[in-house]
Amino acid sequence: MIEQREPQLQSLAREECLELLGRADVGRIGYVVDGTAIILPINYTMLGGDIVFCTAKGAKLSWLSNHSHVAFEVDEGRPADREGWSVLCHGTAHEVTDATELDSLRSGPMPSWVNSSMDHWVRITIQDVSGRAVRR
Amino acid sequence: MIEQREPQLQSLAREECLELLGRADVGRIGYVVDGTAIILPINYTMLGGDIVFCTAKGAKLSWLSNHSHVAFEVDEGRPADREGWSVLCHGTAHEVTDATELDSLRSGPMPSWVNSSMDHWVRITIQDVSGRAVRR
Repeated sequence: MIEQREPQLQSLAREECLELLGRADVGRIGYVVDGTAIILPINYTMLGGDIVFCTAKGAKLSWLSNHSHVAFEVDEGRPADREGWSVLCHGTAHEVTDATELDSLRSGPMPSWVNSSMDHWVRITIQDVSGRAVRR
Repeated sequence: MIEQREPQLQSLAREECLELLGRADVGRIGYVVDGTAIILPINYTMLGGDIVFCTAKGAKLSWLSNHSHVAFEVDEGRPADREGWSVLCHGTAHEVTDATELDSLRSGPMPSWVNSSMDHWVRITIQDVSGRAVRR
């Protein structure tokens, strides 16, 4: 009989957090409206160390026209092993308006699942990042 | 050749959101510290319409000793189909202190991946819930 170790919660180093951010493609943006956290999943990619996603006109984009401080979370679990990890970033978000950068983003490999027009792109510059993992 | 429809973003009815909440077992609690959203994944279960999870002494529990308004998010994606859904709740959280309720929770089927002692349990009463899905 193989004895299984009890899962332990560990903090992750910044480098490991950034590596995990680069491996996933769905995360959650978090921002604050009237003192309440709003959490919405997005498809994203990493570009020059920034988190980049495209979005339709809507609540997120409207909020970003007046604010910039956002949270961004990614996690992955393996329920069968009772193991997993999560990374939480805070940073500043802005809509990309530079025409050359927009052309480059629109021709890239990361279309959203919904917005085939890919009109609006947002780039989050990471200010701090932390992560934790449950491992045996 | 089968023509694939363009994915569409749809709002979900409250009943569908609650059904989806009951099917998942990992979600993310969101709360606000110094104007910034904190997002942390948790294992949870539904009990009498409430979200219930156990946690170790730490940042979440410390925050909850002085606050109660939280967000809770669950999502699921099927990247191959470019389909998925997400549900976002807001509600009030409190640590369970009633001895009978604690005994019942501790003997239940939902241990956290980490906290085998299951000392601290938190119950979130849902105030509002919304959801959306990307479907073809």
